[in-house]
Amino acid sequence: MSKIAVYPGSFDPVTNGHLDIITRAAGVFDQVIVGVLQNSGKQPLFNMDERVQMLKNVTSNLPNVIIDCFDGLLVNYCDKQKATVIIKGLRAVSDFEYEFQMALMNYKLSPHIETLFMMTNSKYSYLSSSMVKEIGRLGGSLDDLIPPSIMTQVFNKVNDLGR
Amino acid sequence: MSKIAVYPGSFDPVTNGHLDIITRAAGVFDQVIVGVLQNSGKQPLFNMDERVQMLKNVTSNLPNVIIDCFDGLLVNYCDKQKATVIIKGLRAVSDFEYEFQMALMNYKLSPHIETLFMMTNSKYSYLSSSMVKEIGRLGGSLDDLIPPSIMTQVFNKVNDLGR
Amino acid sequence: MSKIAVYPGSFDPVTNGHLDIITRAAGVFDQVIVGVLQNSGKQPLFNMDERVQMLKNVTSNLPNVIIDCFDGLLVNYCDKQKATVIIKGLRAVSDFEYEFQMALMNYKLSPHIETLFMMTNSKYSYLSSSMVKEIGRLGGSLDDLIPPSIMTQVFNKVNDLGR
Amino acid sequence: MSKIAVYPGSFDPVTNGHLDIITRAAGVFDQVIVGVLQNSGKQPLFNMDERVQMLKNVTSNLPNVIIDCFDGLLVNYCDKQKATVIIKGLRAVSDFEYEFQMALMNYKLSPHIETLFMMTNSKYSYLSSSMVKEIGRLGGSLDDLIPPSIMTQVFNKVNDLGR
Amino acid sequence: MSKIAVYPGSFDPVTNGHLDIITRAAGVFDQVIVGVLQNSGKQPLFNMDERVQMLKNVTSNLPNVIIDCFDGLLVNYCDKQKATVIIKGLRAVSDFEYEFQMALMNYKLSPHIETLFMMTNSKYSYLSSSMVKEIGRLGGSLDDLIPPSIMTQVFNKVNDLGR
Amino acid sequence: MSKIAVYPGSFDPVTNGHLDIITRAAGVFDQVIVGVLQNSGKQPLFNMDERVQMLKNVTSNLPNVIIDCFDGLLVNYCDKQKATVIIKGLRAVSDFEYEFQMALMNYKLSPHIETLFMMTNSKYSYLSSSMVKEIGRLGGSLDDLIPPSIMTQVFNKVNDLGR
Repeated sequence: MSKIAVYPGSFDPVTNGHLDIITRAAGVFDQVIVGVLQNSGKQPLFNMDERVQMLKNVTSNLPNVIIDCFDGLLVNYCDKQKATVIIKGLRAVSDFEYEFQMALMNYKLSPHIETLFMMTNSKYSYLSSSMVKEIGRLGGSLDDLIPPSIMTQVFNKVNDLGR
Repeated sequence: MSKIAVYPGSFDPVTNGHLDIITRAAGVFDQVIVGVLQNSGKQPLFNMDERVQMLKNVTSNLPNVIIDCFDGLLVNYCDKQKATVIIKGLRAVSDFEYEFQMALMNYKLSPHIETLFMMTNSKYSYLSSSMVKEIGRLGGSLDDLIPPSIMTQVFNKVNDLGR
Repeated sequence: MSKIAVYPGSFDPVTNGHLDIITRAAGVFDQVIVGVLQNSGKQPLFNMDERVQMLKNVTSNLPNVIIDCFDGLLVNYCDKQKATVIIKGLRAVSDFEYEFQMALMNYKLSPHIETLFMMTNSKYSYLSSSMVKEIGRLGGSLDDLIPPSIMTQVFNKVNDLGR
Repeated sequence: MSKIAVYPGSFDPVTNGHLDIITRAAGVFDQVIVGVLQNSGKQPLFNMDERVQMLKNVTSNLPNVIIDCFDGLLVNYCDKQKATVIIKGLRAVSDFEYEFQMALMNYKLSPHIETLFMMTNSKYSYLSSSMVKEIGRLGGSLDDLIPPSIMTQVFNKVNDLGR
Repeated sequence: MSKIAVYPGSFDPVTNGHLDIITRAAGVFDQVIVGVLQNSGKQPLFNMDERVQMLKNVTSNLPNVIIDCFDGLLVNYCDKQKATVIIKGLRAVSDFEYEFQMALMNYKLSPHIETLFMMTNSKYSYLSSSMVKEIGRLGGSLDDLIPPSIMTQVFNKVNDLGR
Repeated sequence: MSKIAVYPGSFDPVTNGHLDIITRAAGVFDQVIVGVLQNSGKQPLFNMDERVQMLKNVTSNLPNVIIDCFDGLLVNYCDKQKATVIIKGLRAVSDFEYEFQMALMNYKLSPHIETLFMMTNSKYSYLSSSMVKEIGRLGGSLDDLIPPSIMTQVFNKVNDLGR
């Protein structure tokens, strides 16, 4: 039986930490669907199209990875995609607490869907999309933080914002 | 490609919390090998044979679960079993910290093996083999803590110890 | 001497986790005053009247529970009510940290008032008013999350919001 | 209805942190029973008689505090004493995790007994019986760590041990 | 070689906890530069001039402490000031997590600058600028929370806000 | 005024994580004294002479680092060495809790000595002397875990132990 996993997130923008999780998950599951969240409550820096395009760009070498977007309940989206696994990355204890609550809630809503956690590679343990935007805005280098192929795009957008 | 996962532990004795993880992992992976650890440093209450038999007993309804024992490095055992996934259960933040270190170390030793974490069902979040032995020794009920089919065996062993 | 405890919160809306704490606190103290906080800084989904009415509704079977509202310092409100105990529920480490700071600060302001903590029942460890509103908004079921008697009211309000 | 609370521990020896909790609990409950644990698994520095005597000594001014000892399950001891409340002090996150598990387990064994937590006064947040013994053994001052009336007794015992 | 340390923060307003760290850091390093952050993203209660003046006021007795303001990347500011050390205070685990990420990121950006952490005195472990503003706004006493010499100024500003 | 810092520990054996802290501390303070603890309570794998020699070996390129041993209270040792700073490395939250207690206790015993914490480089966040001994004993590679110049010595000792 083919195993499909969903890796949900805002990816605003995708970081090297996200890409590390996607790559490793693609080695474990038959198909990994990166689900970009339409979050009506938060105003992202990059619009949905840009976030999806950047993800497609940096995962083009991973044949079993699909980029998609969704809104509504994550467990409903998994059902629609016939995915039975949710993948989450954990960096630190504060991640753990929040993700613990989400996993228990999702288990309550849909006990047939399993949440599996991967530890983020320790060299990315400090990394988040917010930190990328903050450092870019303040003029710091984004080398090693985001994939080279989206460097110019992120740099330009963040600088537009700063102005 | 068939996916094999190893779920390692001491299982001294197996609890309902362990069984919950085994059952859910068996729904995600093609084969789950429960690897009972020969830990030369700790004196278990149940010997290796007893721990393996109890595990076989309580997982007899799960066709894709195998009970085995191992010593040496976990990652070497995984290679020998052609397993590319290690499954660990997380109950609480203190678990998280220790498991985080182990996962990073195992990743350093064998980057081709992934450690995946499952959250323990919240109704077992207080449960551990040590707690089972402690409560049994003090005369408390083990109902809901361990599977019914091993209740008498665990009860008798713990009471022998108490005498 | 009669012991009066205050259980403060926003209750926007009351969840099964809150109700569990209220019920258990009512078994320990002579009187439990549920103090609904007028928080000028946050815009609640339910107005003060609605929150008080829902609490009265779900605690009507608990004769020693009183629903009230307050603004200003919690310790001043306790003094006014002749309460010497503040009750707080703890779900997780992140709760603990924040509540620890609040308890130490309240102790500094009024050392004659004790803050006592109860662990939330593990089956509600993932539950919060925010999670209820989020799940309701996304169309998920609120069964087991909030008391049945306020189900329709919460469902309707949340759906109004979604539109 | 009179409210009886049990405050369990090893008290090997009692510290100013313990005494702070006992004193504050005595202000909340009608009777506080300090239950000294017979722990067959650990060899205490002070025998049961010494620990009980030191506790009686330092709580002699608190008329509603009783010093007692117990073995077996804490919840059974509470039932025997007609106590419906267990009091525990929390100093830090690591306390919290362990105490959380114990509270959930005790709740599972006896849902009619409530565990209530008090935050240790921040000026004692670094203090434990182990730390007292370690510092005493290394020749450090125990002022502010243990009550003055047991200073000589603890100092002598610890120094005997050091020799 | 003279050692210069930067202690960055918003100081909106400076608390006794900040002053404790500044005073102790001034005992360790040849020069301590308190760097008040121009945070374009948050609207402070006190403007930059007020925050700098209050800091100068309460550190006037510390000859090797300089008050300054900065925007942009902290590590760039350190380089400009020839500072090779960043000082941060830690109160609790949640501080730790965030500061851990910031320290790792700053180390990545500028490995020649070291972040050193001091534990906040336990009597200030509950204290933050936000808590000061909240308590002041609700009419509580700010004694022991902020230095006496800025008491009137903070009190008046907070009350203005309340109106 | 010359600043002397003590970096205390068991160093049984020294790891790359320890060496990272020593090297960075040597860049901040005029002199760093690595204080190897005579811990009467624990039986080390390497005796005091071996631990001191390995440390001297791996720090021979750092002119302002001195290797020494001590027993008794750390703060007394600092006074004897005219050191006013204690350096500790932090890897994770569990380190933080313990080190927080120790720092508060040492501050209570000797308020003129400051404990300063450095975050361990994230690539060593999983590393400890215990983990080195465990992995060596189980036949795993110690590359990147300990300095090359002590590799043979540690390997032989650990294998002796295994036999």
